Amino acid sequence: MRLSWGCLAGIAIWLVVLGTARSAAAGVDRDKLMSDPGTYATFVVYELDRDWWKLARPARAKAAKEVTDVFGKHADKVVVDMVLLRGLTDRADLLVRVHSTALAHNQELLVAFGATTFGRHLASRHTWSAVTKKPNYVPSLPDDMKATLKTQPEPGPKAYAILIPVKKDAAWWVAPQDQRNAMMKEHTAASLASLVPVKRKLYHASGFADVDFITYFETSKLDEFNNLIINLMKVRENRHNAQFGGPVVIGTIHPVDKILAVFAS
Amino acid sequence: MRLSWGCLAGIAIWLVVLGTARSAAAGVDRDKLMSDPGTYATFVVYELDRDWWKLARPARAKAAKEVTDVFGKHADKVVVDMVLLRGLTDRADLLVRVHSTALAHNQELLVAFGATTFGRHLASRHTWSAVTKKPNYVPSLPDDMKATLKTQPEPGPKAYAILIPVKKDAAWWVAPQDQRNAMMKEHTAASLASLVPVKRKLYHASGFADVDFITYFETSKLDEFNNLIINLMKVRENRHNAQFGGPVVIGTIHPVDKILAVFAS
Amino acid sequence: MRLSWGCLAGIAIWLVVLGTARSAAAGVDRDKLMSDPGTYATFVVYELDRDWWKLARPARAKAAKEVTDVFGKHADKVVVDMVLLRGLTDRADLLVRVHSTALAHNQELLVAFGATTFGRHLASRHTWSAVTKKPNYVPSLPDDMKATLKTQPEPGPKAYAILIPVKKDAAWWVAPQDQRNAMMKEHTAASLASLVPVKRKLYHASGFADVDFITYFETSKLDEFNNLIINLMKVRENRHNAQFGGPVVIGTIHPVDKILAVFAS
Amino acid sequence: MRLSWGCLAGIAIWLVVLGTARSAAAGVDRDKLMSDPGTYATFVVYELDRDWWKLARPARAKAAKEVTDVFGKHADKVVVDMVLLRGLTDRADLLVRVHSTALAHNQELLVAFGATTFGRHLASRHTWSAVTKKPNYVPSLPDDMKATLKTQPEPGPKAYAILIPVKKDAAWWVAPQDQRNAMMKEHTAASLASLVPVKRKLYHASGFADVDFITYFETSKLDEFNNLIINLMKVRENRHNAQFGGPVVIGTIHPVDKILAVFAS
Amino acid sequence: MRLSWGCLAGIAIWLVVLGTARSAAAGVDRDKLMSDPGTYATFVVYELDRDWWKLARPARAKAAKEVTDVFGKHADKVVVDMVLLRGLTDRADLLVRVHSTALAHNQELLVAFGATTFGRHLASRHTWSAVTKKPNYVPSLPDDMKATLKTQPEPGPKAYAILIPVKKDAAWWVAPQDQRNAMMKEHTAASLASLVPVKRKLYHASGFADVDFITYFETSKLDEFNNLIINLMKVRENRHNAQFGGPVVIGTIHPVDKILAVFAS
Repeated sequence: MRLSWGCLAGIAIWLVVLGTARSAAAGVDRDKLMSDPGTYATFVVYELDRDWWKLARPARAKAAKEVTDVFGKHADKVVVDMVLLRGLTDRADLLVRVHSTALAHNQELLVAFGATTFGRHLASRHTWSAVTKKPNYVPSLPDDMKATLKTQPEPGPKAYAILIPVKKDAAWWVAPQDQRNAMMKEHTAASLASLVPVKRKLYHASGFADVDFITYFETSKLDEFNNLIINLMKVRENRHNAQFGGPVVIGTIHPVDKILAVFAS
Repeated sequence: MRLSWGCLAGIAIWLVVLGTARSAAAGVDRDKLMSDPGTYATFVVYELDRDWWKLARPARAKAAKEVTDVFGKHADKVVVDMVLLRGLTDRADLLVRVHSTALAHNQELLVAFGATTFGRHLASRHTWSAVTKKPNYVPSLPDDMKATLKTQPEPGPKAYAILIPVKKDAAWWVAPQDQRNAMMKEHTAASLASLVPVKRKLYHASGFADVDFITYFETSKLDEFNNLIINLMKVRENRHNAQFGGPVVIGTIHPVDKILAVFAS
Repeated sequence: MRLSWGCLAGIAIWLVVLGTARSAAAGVDRDKLMSDPGTYATFVVYELDRDWWKLARPARAKAAKEVTDVFGKHADKVVVDMVLLRGLTDRADLLVRVHSTALAHNQELLVAFGATTFGRHLASRHTWSAVTKKPNYVPSLPDDMKATLKTQPEPGPKAYAILIPVKKDAAWWVAPQDQRNAMMKEHTAASLASLVPVKRKLYHASGFADVDFITYFETSKLDEFNNLIINLMKVRENRHNAQFGGPVVIGTIHPVDKILAVFAS
Repeated sequence: MRLSWGCLAGIAIWLVVLGTARSAAAGVDRDKLMSDPGTYATFVVYELDRDWWKLARPARAKAAKEVTDVFGKHADKVVVDMVLLRGLTDRADLLVRVHSTALAHNQELLVAFGATTFGRHLASRHTWSAVTKKPNYVPSLPDDMKATLKTQPEPGPKAYAILIPVKKDAAWWVAPQDQRNAMMKEHTAASLASLVPVKRKLYHASGFADVDFITYFETSKLDEFNNLIINLMKVRENRHNAQFGGPVVIGTIHPVDKILAVFAS
Repeated sequence: MRLSWGCLAGIAIWLVVLGTARSAAAGVDRDKLMSDPGTYATFVVYELDRDWWKLARPARAKAAKEVTDVFGKHADKVVVDMVLLRGLTDRADLLVRVHSTALAHNQELLVAFGATTFGRHLASRHTWSAVTKKPNYVPSLPDDMKATLKTQPEPGPKAYAILIPVKKDAAWWVAPQDQRNAMMKEHTAASLASLVPVKRKLYHASGFADVDFITYFETSKLDEFNNLIINLMKVRENRHNAQFGGPVVIGTIHPVDKILAVFAS
């Protein structure tokens, strides 16, 4: 995706300004944090208020710099990513994803972010916290399915990110484990065809938010993603989704500085 | 429909101003885009804020010109249409429909639109993205029904557009394909009588929004449209509509410049 | 009902000003429009913003005059009525009912109304469009019931108006016609006792709004109206009301100029 | 409950100012109105806006005086009470209860109240109108229960008021009268133990609001009230409560002038 | 959790200022109040408005001092705690928990708090009042379970607080007591493993709010808490949760002065 937002003037200069700040953000081991169990993630969907746009462009560029400075200061503990939601998710401008080893670290970062000039123009429309775990149902799957599940998604950056919060009904949770295993086997089989084009990550949210799971997807092939979702809706486990979406959060993936530039330029 | 909005003064001059901008909007093959599978559409229902009306008329006319300039710049990739909702859909003023071959193009256009003076006075109340596909159920229909389905809607511009988002329940998706085929056959039969007066277009939204389908209608005969909807509610497939509308979005169809003139004059 | 709103000063003079405007509103045949099938009605529940009350009284009186001027200009096509909701329906101040032979006419009037000084201080909280039809179920009723249904409501102005939007469930629409006929016969029998004290009008909204029917009542005897609603809830057809109210809109009936005076004085 | 709100300064003087106005409020026969069938009540839950607090204290005291003047002017027709909700019911500051023999009188008072300086800073978050009737089910109760029901609540002012709106499901209304009688007998038996500590009043709202009943309670013993509610939830009739609360409105009872003083001082 | 919020400058000085006020807050017997039955608690989830941040830092520090002064004045009757929600619960900044022997005391404190400069910038997004009782189901539990239930949670301050409001369905309340006892036995067994790491407190809210229970948790081990919630969802009693969460309120525990410092610095 070539960034060609209406007003590009000023972005170039502004990126130079950001350069220094980002180079400081090298503390925490991102890959480990993003693959380990026990990582706490907080997802916040933000909407910008109207007064933001009344700030002059230099003030907005300075405010964006303030954000990357804050992110840099917390980079020893917290990994921050952004998804540009504006135009694709209603009443939303950006998704901030925060990962660390403790929910309190996520809060510290988000409080500091909220205290920046930019943050004071943002309202949080949705907030979900969740934790990563070792896969629950994989041990009960047949061996060939386990092998297939090790297929790696195609490497390289993806164009789109989709977050779908999921809440199971009481019948799901009260059902015996072997019934859930059987349904998850069907669910897993329905997703195998999409392992390469669609990257998936599961977070557990029971007790931390009003949903049980945060399912997070990255893909460059939205048609394959649409097929995946339809396939997942066709298995019996779907009868136990008390909530699937509500909201579906969809946007495009870019480096933090490019997303800030959309709002600063 | 003759446009006789309260204050027509100034529209004429303003249309002249718009003339040049629109002539630049000839890049993408609109007909192909609107009939091909694999086209991505984004629908945004916008509401104007009150401060817009505090702008002086020349400032509003200039702001409208800015919008058509932005649309012109993206005309090589994106087709933009508008429906005037004001007065007919609550808390809404206009529907923007964007079509292109990639969701990212739609977002680029909508971000640029949102950054215009006019766009900064708009709040998005609903946003749905979706993709066009080859018809799913037609292959299983009897031959005479297939032949009838090729009936063309009556040509020429239509007065009204109606958008109805639809979400199917889990029972629908989990049912075997032949049961869905049988129900879609009834659904199709119920709609045959309206093929001429009501133009229909179907978009697939699962995973891109909180609904499964965007159904979009254009007609000049609202009584026939009302009959169509009632006929569709009388078939068994209707039992599987977890959401049908919510909201129903209804408005009148006009060229973009005429709709902008309503807000600029 | 004697109008004795807190601040009556200024109403008298203002009514004189309104006199001329109203005398121009004699174009369309109101009685025919209100009794014919094929009439399109749009109902808008409006709430005034707080800034309205910051306008000086002369400015508000001038703004009210502007409204009656706009209504006068559209009087050849559109009939406009108002119900005063303030104090009786939450977050609402007035209901505007518009009738004409085409939905586009209703929109033209409402866009022009919204562009007045008064209209710019109003937010539409609910909007429903609907069409009148010949009664659906009357042909299947027994002859004595048909005869009783011709009973005229008592003549003269009524004090109260109540609008109740109704949405039927899928089971209703999918049921065979004779089952619906049988249930409507019970429904009709339950309403016969209220034909004189309560005037009723039914509008069909499927496809135009998120409900199937707009039921509109006028009465001076609210106790009889309460009995009518309870009687209607006691018949089997009530099981198929997916929505009945939500909101119930209730207010008092006055001439447009008297209602405007409440806000202008 | 001793009133010890943070800033008591100024209340004393202000109460003197109110004295005259209240003495004029002696028109209507309050006891008769509050016990007769056919009395119309309107309940409005109001929230104060933030700008109110920006008014200087003398301006707020003057505004409170304006309110009692308005109440005094309508005292020949309308009884007005207030409950202080601030701190106990979310997004709410006060409940206004209005009783008269006609809904139009209630509206006149509420429109006049809304036009005061204080009223213009209030937003109505919930509005319910309802009418009192002779008890529906008492005639079918056994004689000893009828006798017990005549028990008077303990006299004297109560500390707390609770309003719970109730909507019955279709199955309730469609059930034969003797089934409803049997369930109401259980309901009544479950409430007998609370007749002394909890004062109750029932209003009928079908067709006037989106609920069927307004149940209104006054008590100084919240533990007994909690027991009463739990007992009522344990009888079969509770299965037919489509809505019970939503919202529960809870606050403390004080004379109008003391409640106004909370906002004026 | 080390407090390292972006802007720490000024906190130190400000804490000194707070010192005096807090030393006055020693009236009521906190431990007794927090463990006795018959204690009334009010929980308010507040969101700060944007104008707060426009105040200069000294004005904000002074406003925070005003809050602790108010708390000090009510310390003979009311215990006040705070949880920092900002960043973890959407559209929320802090939870205020108030405990006393009478709901009216809670209201007095909350009204006084709302009248402070800080309070006037807060909107209450959720308010629940509830009362503590002796455990309902413990008497029917087997002796070994009763013994286990006396296990004390690990001492010392906890990092996180979670509030989950719960509403039971009608089937729960109408069920015979022995069925509820049997389900509560399962519920209790499912929670035994978490008695040490997760501190729990139950409040009864029927009739005081739109839920039946407020369940309040404190823990430093969120993974154990997540397991507890999942275990509780797996017992039959979960089928009777008409509401569990909605919202889940989650935040970090700090002394009042430290939380105020987050907003004042």
